[in-house]
Amino acid sequence: MTPFKLTEELVKNIEQHIENKNNAELIALFQDVHYADIAEIINELDNDEATYLIKLLDSDKTSDILTELDEDVREAILGNLSSKEIASELGELDTDDAADIIGELPKEQVQDVISKIEDREHAKDIVDLLRYAENSAGGLMAKELVKVNENWNVLTCVKEMRAQAENVTRVHSIYVVDDEDKLKGRLSLKDLLTTSTKTHIKDIFIKNVDSVNVNEDPEEVARIMSKYDLEAIPVIDEIGRLVGRITIDDIIDVIKEEAERDYQMAAGISQDVEADASIWELTRARLPWLILGLFGGAAAAVIMGGFEEMFREYTVLFLFTPLIAAMAGNVGVQSSAIIVQGLANDDIKGSISNRLIKEMLLALLNGFILSCLLLVFTWVWKGDFLTSLAISISLIAVIVVAGFIGTFVPLFLDKRGIDPAIATGPFITTSNDIFGILIYFSIAKLILGI
Amino acid sequence: MTPFKLTEELVKNIEQHIENKNNAELIALFQDVHYADIAEIINELDNDEATYLIKLLDSDKTSDILTELDEDVREAILGNLSSKEIASELGELDTDDAADIIGELPKEQVQDVISKIEDREHAKDIVDLLRYAENSAGGLMAKELVKVNENWNVLTCVKEMRAQAENVTRVHSIYVVDDEDKLKGRLSLKDLLTTSTKTHIKDIFIKNVDSVNVNEDPEEVARIMSKYDLEAIPVIDEIGRLVGRITIDDIIDVIKEEAERDYQMAAGISQDVEADASIWELTRARLPWLILGLFGGAAAAVIMGGFEEMFREYTVLFLFTPLIAAMAGNVGVQSSAIIVQGLANDDIKGSISNRLIKEMLLALLNGFILSCLLLVFTWVWKGDFLTSLAISISLIAVIVVAGFIGTFVPLFLDKRGIDPAIATGPFITTSNDIFGILIYFSIAKLILGI
Repeated sequence: MTPFKLTEELVKNIEQHIENKNNAELIALFQDVHYADIAEIINELDNDEATYLIKLLDSDKTSDILTELDEDVREAILGNLSSKEIASELGELDTDDAADIIGELPKEQVQDVISKIEDREHAKDIVDLLRYAENSAGGLMAKELVKVNENWNVLTCVKEMRAQAENVTRVHSIYVVDDEDKLKGRLSLKDLLTTSTKTHIKDIFIKNVDSVNVNEDPEEVARIMSKYDLEAIPVIDEIGRLVGRITIDDIIDVIKEEAERDYQMAAGISQDVEADASIWELTRARLPWLILGLFGGAAAAVIMGGFEEMFREYTVLFLFTPLIAAMAGNVGVQSSAIIVQGLANDDIKGSISNRLIKEMLLALLNGFILSCLLLVFTWVWKGDFLTSLAISISLIAVIVVAGFIGTFVPLFLDKRGIDPAIATGPFITTSNDIFGILIYFSIAKLILGI
Repeated sequence: MTPFKLTEELVKNIEQHIENKNNAELIALFQDVHYADIAEIINELDNDEATYLIKLLDSDKTSDILTELDEDVREAILGNLSSKEIASELGELDTDDAADIIGELPKEQVQDVISKIEDREHAKDIVDLLRYAENSAGGLMAKELVKVNENWNVLTCVKEMRAQAENVTRVHSIYVVDDEDKLKGRLSLKDLLTTSTKTHIKDIFIKNVDSVNVNEDPEEVARIMSKYDLEAIPVIDEIGRLVGRITIDDIIDVIKEEAERDYQMAAGISQDVEADASIWELTRARLPWLILGLFGGAAAAVIMGGFEEMFREYTVLFLFTPLIAAMAGNVGVQSSAIIVQGLANDDIKGSISNRLIKEMLLALLNGFILSCLLLVFTWVWKGDFLTSLAISISLIAVIVVAGFIGTFVPLFLDKRGIDPAIATGPFITTSNDIFGILIYFSIAKLILGI
């Protein structure tokens, strides 16, 4: 496979062809290109060019392209298409992708588009999916799946399956239901093929099947599927009826988004923004954390103001406040990141107190090493052993407290059912700055006997 | 499905059974429990208990359990098993999992274990896999796959496939090779089943098949598979021969590990450590970044020392150094996180200079809002407008420079082929602390005309 590479020349070339309306060349050019790659190209075009291409290419390809486009590009293209054109694109898509796109349409257009989908069964399935919250297993699942009734025999089953499989890209599993559509188990293709055609499904199916409830949290679905190495999982409603199926490709997106959210949270970005978001979106995501930092800094200033009388004699103490604040922040972020990641991976075992004791020991060890380095530096630089000692001892205390806060806060939030990721990043650095400076000056004052 | 829940009672109960050697109860207890769940339980037991269970349970179950255990637990159990026992576990595993476990054995034991694997074909495949670097497509792939020769007819093909599929848990795709074992394409199960048995494979197979080279970076494999929604991808060697297959469950681990590494890097943790790592491992991962922070803090102290004569008159300036340093750090982390994430997702388009201009505008906007807030606070607190203004104007400058550094450094590293993630976290906060403080005092000095 020669990997696809998006280049400026390629985009320019395509723009040229569009301008000259070289339809034959364009169709030939995109003949063997994967829809995900075409989507990357279209993301680079302006709206009219993009719409031109979408109208030009085959609708079985363009429907897949639409699902892969950046949201703003897709919105612009859909705005240029008629309800009938959109309906025909949706007709080509799996129900979950179609429902996601409908969810992005203006409310007043939804009914019109749905009414124009030719396959009424498909339209009904899409409407069913619209009922589920986006952030649930129901919002993630597709209606496409292969299911057989436990009362059928193998012959009926194979016949029915063939019809159903027409609409299903990848079969993965054959689910077995009873007359009320309740999920009973699954069927192995091997057993189906090696059993006499008169055998009843009831007698050969596997009763043990993993499933998730339609209201389950997507991250929990991801955890189950990746723990048990499942490539698809059936979704059941409150009374156990089989209502859909989630496949692993949707779960990969969930896993990526979860990791990205935790990462952004740790960096002080509170909403899911991408590098290409507008300045206004970026400001909304970033400014709240910066304001938090500003308040923290102001609090630190007030605290330092309380020690102003120490200034004249012990100026050197003040020179090290950025160092103390930085170390408190760094240790806090390290501790909290390990805990947050451990919680996300279900890795945190044992009691909170054991965890805290371990973190204290770790902080003591790191603090001791760092303090020795600092002691030598300050002593050589300023030649005042007692002050140097005071700064170094304060540093150990600050590191231990910072480690404690960084460990305790996310564990505490998690116990309370709050996402511990909010405790990483600016929140921890800001509170550790304040505590760090307070501890630093208090201990230094004590040691120097001021 | 009742979800499995690991409880202390359950573990205690099992420990009790092991102590009393209630083998029948133990076997019954684990009868319907998934191997991934049993692994979670065993992770909680001591080594003798764990070994006892592994020896007690069926080897087709225990081999899977072994792959799911924590590395240190697995190591301890394998240490308690004879080479013959280990060989029999490996015989039950897919080649990729078996090779991973062999990679963890003491070097002197490897040959002995391999020689005791009964299925010599399987042993040969495992040995083949040991040759590949862990961090490559070859290190990730399994030898289990279904392949047919393009010169066969459908009848031969179905017969051969049946034999091959015995060893393959999930078929996904049927690969077509020529007489030299070179990958030519893939075969759709549907075409195979609906074509006359005398048809040659050559005439029905699909020539378009994605594949990756055996030396490809796992993260690139993950990118390709998730972009093209592939559930399996064939791996070819330097001359195009089909040598293995990578499945989506292995790729999920790659995606998770990549996200975790970026996250840990941003938090100043330089090696892949888990919450349960030893204090010594945690120190090795964390201390280097803390020492970097210490050097940065020392540099900041020296810089501040250069402005010592400003002390007497403008004490208030010094009270705000932690605030300035914190804001510089926060803005730098935000900017770099967006860029690093955008680069990881292939989201960063356009030139570096456009990106920098956007970030400067964003920083100006955020800086202006924050400076106004700070101006009011300082003015009210200290009643000195000119000093307050000097602090606020410096803050804008610091934020703009911090945004510039946070954007430029990861983009620059990426262009140079260096992982931009190292530029997040402590690296950015430390350098921004230093620059921030330098800019702050310089601008304040200028404005106040000292």
